[in-house]
Amino acid sequence: MSKYVYFFGSGKADGQANMKNLLGGKGANLAEMTNLGIPVPAGFTISTEVCTAYYDNDSQYPETLASQVSEAIAQVESVMGTKFGDHDNPLLLSVRSGARASMPGMMDTILNLGLNDTTVQGLIAQSNNERFAYDSYRRFVQMYGDVVLGLKPESQDEHDPFEVLLDAKKQARGVENDTDLTAEDLKELVQEFKAEIKKKTGHDFPEDPQEQLWGAVGAVFSSWNNDRAIVYRKLNDIPYEWGTAVNVQSMVFGNMGDDCATGVAFTRDPSTGEKEFYGEYLKNAQGEDVVAGTRTPQPISQLKEEMPEVYAQLGDIYIKLENHYKDMQDVEFTLQRDRLWMLQTRTGKRTGFAAFRIAVDMVEEGLITEDEAIRRVEPDQLNQLLRPIFDANEKRAAQEDGRVLATGLNAGPGAAAGKVVFNADDAETWAKRGDHVILVRVETSPEDIRGMSAADGILTARGGMTSHAALVARQMGKICVAGCGALHIDYVKREMVVSGKTVKEGDYISIDGTTGEVIEGAIPTIPSEVLQVLLQGSLAPEDSELYHCYDRMMTWADKYRSLKIRTNADQPDQSATARAFGAEGIGLCRTEHMFFEEDRIESVREMILSDDEAGRRAALAKLLPMQREDFRGIFEVMDGFPVTIRTLDPPLHEFLPHEDDAIVELAGVMNVAPDALRQKVEDLKESNPMLGHRGCRLGIVFPEITEMQARAIFEAATECQKKGIKALPEIMIPLVGHVNELKAQEQIVRSVAEAVKGETGITIEYDLGTMIELPRAALTADEIAEVAEFFSFGTNDLTQTTFGLSRDDAKFLPDYLSQEIWPEDPFVSIDRSGVGELVKIGVEKGRTTRKNLKVGICGEHGGDPDSVEFCHQIGLNYVSCSPYRVPIARLAAARAALAE
Amino acid sequence: MSKYVYFFGSGKADGQANMKNLLGGKGANLAEMTNLGIPVPAGFTISTEVCTAYYDNDSQYPETLASQVSEAIAQVESVMGTKFGDHDNPLLLSVRSGARASMPGMMDTILNLGLNDTTVQGLIAQSNNERFAYDSYRRFVQMYGDVVLGLKPESQDEHDPFEVLLDAKKQARGVENDTDLTAEDLKELVQEFKAEIKKKTGHDFPEDPQEQLWGAVGAVFSSWNNDRAIVYRKLNDIPYEWGTAVNVQSMVFGNMGDDCATGVAFTRDPSTGEKEFYGEYLKNAQGEDVVAGTRTPQPISQLKEEMPEVYAQLGDIYIKLENHYKDMQDVEFTLQRDRLWMLQTRTGKRTGFAAFRIAVDMVEEGLITEDEAIRRVEPDQLNQLLRPIFDANEKRAAQEDGRVLATGLNAGPGAAAGKVVFNADDAETWAKRGDHVILVRVETSPEDIRGMSAADGILTARGGMTSHAALVARQMGKICVAGCGALHIDYVKREMVVSGKTVKEGDYISIDGTTGEVIEGAIPTIPSEVLQVLLQGSLAPEDSELYHCYDRMMTWADKYRSLKIRTNADQPDQSATARAFGAEGIGLCRTEHMFFEEDRIESVREMILSDDEAGRRAALAKLLPMQREDFRGIFEVMDGFPVTIRTLDPPLHEFLPHEDDAIVELAGVMNVAPDALRQKVEDLKESNPMLGHRGCRLGIVFPEITEMQARAIFEAATECQKKGIKALPEIMIPLVGHVNELKAQEQIVRSVAEAVKGETGITIEYDLGTMIELPRAALTADEIAEVAEFFSFGTNDLTQTTFGLSRDDAKFLPDYLSQEIWPEDPFVSIDRSGVGELVKIGVEKGRTTRKNLKVGICGEHGGDPDSVEFCHQIGLNYVSCSPYRVPIARLAAARAALAE
Repeated sequence: MSKYVYFFGSGKADGQANMKNLLGGKGANLAEMTNLGIPVPAGFTISTEVCTAYYDNDSQYPETLASQVSEAIAQVESVMGTKFGDHDNPLLLSVRSGARASMPGMMDTILNLGLNDTTVQGLIAQSNNERFAYDSYRRFVQMYGDVVLGLKPESQDEHDPFEVLLDAKKQARGVENDTDLTAEDLKELVQEFKAEIKKKTGHDFPEDPQEQLWGAVGAVFSSWNNDRAIVYRKLNDIPYEWGTAVNVQSMVFGNMGDDCATGVAFTRDPSTGEKEFYGEYLKNAQGEDVVAGTRTPQPISQLKEEMPEVYAQLGDIYIKLENHYKDMQDVEFTLQRDRLWMLQTRTGKRTGFAAFRIAVDMVEEGLITEDEAIRRVEPDQLNQLLRPIFDANEKRAAQEDGRVLATGLNAGPGAAAGKVVFNADDAETWAKRGDHVILVRVETSPEDIRGMSAADGILTARGGMTSHAALVARQMGKICVAGCGALHIDYVKREMVVSGKTVKEGDYISIDGTTGEVIEGAIPTIPSEVLQVLLQGSLAPEDSELYHCYDRMMTWADKYRSLKIRTNADQPDQSATARAFGAEGIGLCRTEHMFFEEDRIESVREMILSDDEAGRRAALAKLLPMQREDFRGIFEVMDGFPVTIRTLDPPLHEFLPHEDDAIVELAGVMNVAPDALRQKVEDLKESNPMLGHRGCRLGIVFPEITEMQARAIFEAATECQKKGIKALPEIMIPLVGHVNELKAQEQIVRSVAEAVKGETGITIEYDLGTMIELPRAALTADEIAEVAEFFSFGTNDLTQTTFGLSRDDAKFLPDYLSQEIWPEDPFVSIDRSGVGELVKIGVEKGRTTRKNLKVGICGEHGGDPDSVEFCHQIGLNYVSCSPYRVPIARLAAARAALAE
Repeated sequence: MSKYVYFFGSGKADGQANMKNLLGGKGANLAEMTNLGIPVPAGFTISTEVCTAYYDNDSQYPETLASQVSEAIAQVESVMGTKFGDHDNPLLLSVRSGARASMPGMMDTILNLGLNDTTVQGLIAQSNNERFAYDSYRRFVQMYGDVVLGLKPESQDEHDPFEVLLDAKKQARGVENDTDLTAEDLKELVQEFKAEIKKKTGHDFPEDPQEQLWGAVGAVFSSWNNDRAIVYRKLNDIPYEWGTAVNVQSMVFGNMGDDCATGVAFTRDPSTGEKEFYGEYLKNAQGEDVVAGTRTPQPISQLKEEMPEVYAQLGDIYIKLENHYKDMQDVEFTLQRDRLWMLQTRTGKRTGFAAFRIAVDMVEEGLITEDEAIRRVEPDQLNQLLRPIFDANEKRAAQEDGRVLATGLNAGPGAAAGKVVFNADDAETWAKRGDHVILVRVETSPEDIRGMSAADGILTARGGMTSHAALVARQMGKICVAGCGALHIDYVKREMVVSGKTVKEGDYISIDGTTGEVIEGAIPTIPSEVLQVLLQGSLAPEDSELYHCYDRMMTWADKYRSLKIRTNADQPDQSATARAFGAEGIGLCRTEHMFFEEDRIESVREMILSDDEAGRRAALAKLLPMQREDFRGIFEVMDGFPVTIRTLDPPLHEFLPHEDDAIVELAGVMNVAPDALRQKVEDLKESNPMLGHRGCRLGIVFPEITEMQARAIFEAATECQKKGIKALPEIMIPLVGHVNELKAQEQIVRSVAEAVKGETGITIEYDLGTMIELPRAALTADEIAEVAEFFSFGTNDLTQTTFGLSRDDAKFLPDYLSQEIWPEDPFVSIDRSGVGELVKIGVEKGRTTRKNLKVGICGEHGGDPDSVEFCHQIGLNYVSCSPYRVPIARLAAARAALAE
C-alpha cells in the first residue's frame, strides 16, 4: 500500500527536510522541526502525489487515502489529548497548502476546522473565553464559505458577502472595530453567515467535521490551479506537474487573549541581509492577521521587552534552525497562553542585496563554504546591487524642501520614481505603454501580482515587513515601501492624501526602498555603490559593504568557473564598462552601429546609391578612416583581450529612409532625383527582411564592403601594435549558411591582411570565423569548421529560424505563454531541445573537424543564467553578453561549473 | 611513375570504355573502338588528372608528362608511318578536349597541328593537292590564332580578324565562296594571318610543331574554365572538379578531294527515337564544317547512293557499336580517299521522345532489360511527352491560309509559339519579363547557350540535325527547327524575310519541332498525345506510339519503385488529373485556396474582422457548408486513397486588401468604418510574415477555425461513407514547432471527430499528423511523434528557415549561383547536407518514438527527381507533387530503387 499521509508530532515525524518533493516545503520542514525537538503542533501531511493523482483522475483520491487520514487523525488526537468533533475537548485543525517551492498567499488555507454548533461549546469550555470561541467559529465559517464553498468574490470590485454582514453588524452595534463586537454579536454573525451560505449555494453549511475536512482538502488541491497560482507559477517557473501537498495540523491560538500572540520572523533581515532577528508579531491575533497586512504589527524587538522569556526561547530556536539549515529562516510562531509553538520554518525569501550579504557573511562566519555561497545566490539578483540609487544631493534637497511625504517600511531596497497608479490593471496598462509607475495600494493581494510585476515600485499603506506586498516585492526584486500608515488612499477619486498634500493618479512620486521614504516628485537617480566603485571611482571600495559582497562573490565565482565571459560592445566606453565588470574580451562588435552615426550615414547612403563598384568604392574610402578609428579605440581598451568584429550584417534598406518626406529630403542632400531614390528604396524592399539580403550575403554581392572593413581592422590593429598595444582581432562573418560563403569572404579578408602586412611590415595575429545563426550552419558545421577558426552562436537569429518565428512579429506570444504551449519565451532563455540541440550539433560537428575550435555564444542568451548553464554544459569556451550582464554571467558560469 | 598518357591505335589501346573518369568520354571511346577493331586514327589521351593537377598547381604540368607525350608521339608515328615535324611525310595532329560528360562545342579544338612553312610542303607532296594543303594550313593558323593565341573576339558584335582578312581576300579576288580561292590566295592568307598574329600579340606564330602542340594542350585545359564552359556545366550539373582530358590524334582528311567526306551520324533518330540510321555528311570537308552548321550537309541516306560500299561498312560498324554499347551511338567519321576512319563514338544525346522510344524499343528488341530502360531515361525528359502540341485544326487552317512560311529540319520535337528575337541576349531579357520567345539565328554557337535556354523555341537558317542548335536543343529538351534555308535574316534590321513575307522582331511565329514547319502567328496548342489518352479519352491508347512508350515505362517503373507517389491538389478536377497520372492519394490539400474563392472570401473577411469569438463563429458557420462540399468532392475522386488536408496556414492579412482604395471599397461592402478596417489591416501587418502569425499559430489563437475545418472534413467523410465511398482523411496541422502546439490542435480535432460521430453514428477512420517544416520540429520529432500519426515534410518552408532565406527575397540568388556559392537553387533540388540532414534527423527521431510513423514530403521538391531519390534513400513512405509531376516522380522513384 502506497503511503500518502505523513504524521508529525511530539518529537518524531514520518518525514524529514529532504522530502520536499513529496511533502512540499512546509510539510517537510514541519517534520524536520519536529525531529529537531522544536515544539510543533501535531499534524500530518497529505503528499503531493495525491495532488497529481487527484488531477490525473478527475478529482478522485487514491482509494486508501481516507483510511490513512483517519489513522493520522487518531495519532494527532492522542498526542494533543483532544478529539476531532468532540463536544468537550475538540481537536481543531488548520488545512494549508504546501508546494515544493513556496508560493506565498497563492493558495487557500482553512483555519479552526472542526468547529460546529456543538464543538464550539467545547472550545468555550477549554478556552474559558466565549468571545474567542465565537470569533474563531465566525472566522472558520467565513473562510470555509469563501474558499471551499466559493463565495469569495472573483474581482476586487465586488464585496465579500461575509464582510458585508460583518460591516452591517458593526454599524448596527455602533462600533468601529471587529474587536468591539461581543460574543453574542459574533454568535449571531455565525448564524447570519450560515444563512448567507444556504442562500448562495442552496446547501446547509456542513456541520460534520469529517465533511469539513474533506471539503477543505479538496479546496486546497483545487487551489493549485486557480488563476493566481497559475500566474505565480509562470512568473517563477514552477512546473504545474509538481502539485501541492496539504498540511493538516492541530490549531494553536494566538488570539485567546493578551497572553497569546502570533508572529512571523526572519533569522536575518530579508531586505538588507543584516544579521539580526527581524520580524513582527501581533498580540491576541491569528497568524493570518500578520501576513494579510490588515493590522500593522509590532517589530519583534518589542517582544524582547514584553515577553523576554519567550524572546529568549525564540532566539534559541532561531540559532538551532540556522545551524541546522545553514541558511536564513523564515518562521511562523504562535504563543498560546505563554506556550510557544513553531508553525513553520522555511528558507527565507530575500532581496538580492540580502542574498549577497547573507551568503558572504555566512562564509565569513564559517557556516557555509565559498561554493555554497555561490549556489546560494541567483545570478539575476546581482541586478539589484547594480540598480540605481537616488542622487544624494537631489534627495537632500527634497528633504530640505519638505518633499518627503512620509516614511514607511523599507520592504524592498532600491530607488524608484514614477507615476502613481492605484490599481494593478492600470499599472500593467501604463507600464505597457512605456510609463514608469509606482503602484499604490492600501494593501496588496495575490490578485495584484501582474500589476506588481509591471510596476517600478510598490507602496502600501498597511502591512508589515512580512505582508504580501513586502514578500512578493522582495521576491520579484521590486522596490517597495510597505505599511506607510500616513497615506490616505481614495480609490474612487484616484488620489491619496498624505501630510496634507494630495497626490493624484499620474503624479510623480519617488520611493526609497532602502530607507522607506516616500517623496513628492521624481528624484533623479545615480549609479549604485558597486558602480560608483567600479566605474566612477567616486567611492572607495572599503567604504561600501555592498561592494565588498560583490567583490567577494565575483572573486569566488572566478575561482570556480571555466567559461570565459566576454561582452557585446561597439564603442570604447561600452568596452571600458565591460572591462570594469570583468569582461575578458569582446564577443560581438557590431560594425553597423558605427555606420548609423551621423557623420557616416551619408557615406553609407552614397555607397548604397552607387550604381557600380567604382562608386561604392569611392564612398567606402570615406568610411575607411572612421571605421579604423572605431576599431583603434576598442583595441586600446581591450589591450591583450580578443575582439570579435562582425562584418556588416543588416539589410541595406535599413540605412535608407522609407517615408516619402524623408526620401525627398535625402534626395536633395544626396543630389539625386527623388524618383531614383524612391526606386532604390523600392528595389531594396523585401517581404521578409530577416531572411533577405543581409549578413555575408552583402559581402558576397559587394565584396568591396568586406574589403574596406577588413582593411580598417588591420590598419587599426597595426597602429595599436606600433604603440605597444596588443590588438587581437577575430573577424567574424555573419549569417553563413554554406561553407562556400565563408570561403569567399575569407579570401577577401586574408588578402587584405596580406596587403596591409606588405604595406606596413607588421604582422597582425588574427582569427577568422563565423557566426552560427542559421540551422544550416549548425548542421554543416563540420564543413564550415574547415575554414572557420572560431564559431560564435548567434542564438537570437538561430532562435528565429529554428522556430520560424520573427521576434518583431510574435504577437501571439502572450497566447502561447498563457496556454503553456511554450514553457518560456525562447528569446529570453535558450530553448534547449530545439535551438540548444542545434548548438550542440554545431559544436560537436565543428570540433570533429577542428579539435581546438574556439566556440562562444553572442546572442542575448549570453546574459541569461539558465542559458549560461547550458553553454557550460555543452562545452563552449565563452559567452558574450551586454556589459551590465557580465558579472551575472560570471556568477552563472561558476554556478554551472559547481552544478556538475 | 604515374601514367598520364594513354595510347591508342592499330587495334590496341591502353585505355577502354570504362575509364571515362580518367580519359573523358571521347578518349575512353576512342580506346574502346580501337580495341573493337574499328578503324580509328592513332593517337593518345592526356588524362583528366593532368587537368586537375594543372589547375591545382598554377597551370604547371606534372614533371613526367613531357616524356610520356614524346613516347606516345613516337608510337603514333610508328603506327601511321609519318613523322611529327617531318619535311616529307609530316604527322599532323588534332588536339581536342574530352570531359567525362559530353560538352559539345563548349571547349576548343585545334586541327592540322604540326603544319608550318616546311611541313606544308610535305603535305603538298603527300596529298598532291597544293590548294588542300594551304587550305589546311590556313585553317590551322586561324584556329591556333583564335584559340591558343586569344585572337577570337569576345562578343558576337566584334569580328574575327581572320574572317575579316578572308572576306577581304574574297572581295579582292571577286569570288563569293572560300572554295573559290586558289592555292596561291590561301598561301597569301597564311602569311597575312601570321602578320595579323604578330601585330596583335607581338609574337611570331610558332613554327615549331612541339611548341604548337604544347600551346594547344594548354589552350584545351584552359578552355575548361571559359565562360561558356562554366555556364554549360551549371546548366548540366557538371562539377568543376571533373576536369577535361586532351585527345591528340593523327589527322585524317575529309577535304582532300571528292573521294573524301566527313560525317556525323546517329544509330537511331535522336529526335523521335525511330530505329533508322540518321545523320549527315559533307563531301570534301572537315568535320567541323558539319557540326558548325556553316554548310547544310547531305542526309546520310544519300551516301548509300553515292558510296554504297562505304555506307555498308558504316552500317556494320553501327551494328557492332550498338551491340557493344547497348545504346544509341553518336559517331563521327571521315572518309579519306575512300578509306573510312571513325573519329568518335559516344552515347548519343536525344530528346525525351527519343529517349523513351529507344529505351522501350531496345527492351522489345531484347537489347536491354526493363530496369535498364528505366535507368536510361531521365525522369524530367518525360515532360516532353506531356508537352502541348499544336491544335491540328488551327494548324490546318494556318496551312490552308498559306501561313506556313517554310519547313526546316525537325530538330527538337514539340510545338512552340512566341515572339521573334534575333539574338541570345534579347531572348534572355524578353523571357525574363515574361514573354514567350522564339530565338531566330542564322546558326547558333556556344555563346548563345543562355539565350537558347531562355527561349521557348529555336529556329536556325543553317545547320543540320547535328548542328550546334540541334544538339543543344535536344539536350535541353527545347523545341527546335534547324537549317531552314528559306529564312533570310537581317540582324541589323532585326527582321527576316521568308517566302516574300517580312517577320520583324516581336512578331509572333510558331514552330513545329516535330514536322519542321515554321508558321506565321501564334497557333494555339492542345494537350499531348499522352494527355489525350489519359485525361481526355480523345485518343485510343493503341493509336499512339508515344502513349505506348509512356505506358510501358510507367508499368515498369511501378514494378521497381517502393516509394508511393501522391499529389498536391486542392480541387476535385486537379485530383482527377493526378489520379489519371497514377497518384496514390493526396499528400497536400491546401484549404486556404478554398478560402480565396469569390463566394467565400467575404465570410473569411467577416471572420477576420470580428472582434470576438462569437463573431468569428458566426462567419465560420457560413464557411462550413462550402468547405464540406470541397472535401466531399475530393474524397469522391480519391475514393479509397488517403487525402491529407492541411488546416489553415497563411497569415490572415493575406485575405485582406492592402491598398487604400480597396480597403475603402471593402469597408463599404462589409459595412464597417474604413478607419476600423485600416486599423485591422495595420494590426495584422508583420515585418516578416513568413515567420509570423500563421500555420497552427492561427488555430491556437483562434481554435474555432480548426474546429470548423475539422467539422467540414468529418461531415464530408461521413456523407461519402454513407454513399459507399471510402474517405481516408489525414488531418495535417501546419507549422508545428513544439509538440504542445500539436497537442492543443489535436484536442480540437479529436473532440470534433467524437462530436460528429455522436451526431451521425458513423465512425470515420482518420489520422492526425503534422507538417515538419521548421527546424525545431525536425529536431524534436521524437516528442512530436508522440502525438503525430504521420509527418509530412514541408521542404519549401524548411528550406527557407534552414537557410534563413526568403524565397520571395532571394535577389542575390543569381550572384550565388554564378559564384558557385551554392551548387544549385535549394528551392529546386533539396539541399541534402542541410535541409536533407534535418529531414533525416526528423525521420529517425520520429520513428524512434513511433515505429510505423508514416512519413512523406509535400514541398515542391516532391517532383524533383534528385530529391525523390533522396527521399527514397532515407526511407520515406511517399512523395507528393503537383499532378503533372506524378509520372516523373514515379519514374524517379523507380530509378532510386534501382540505384540501390
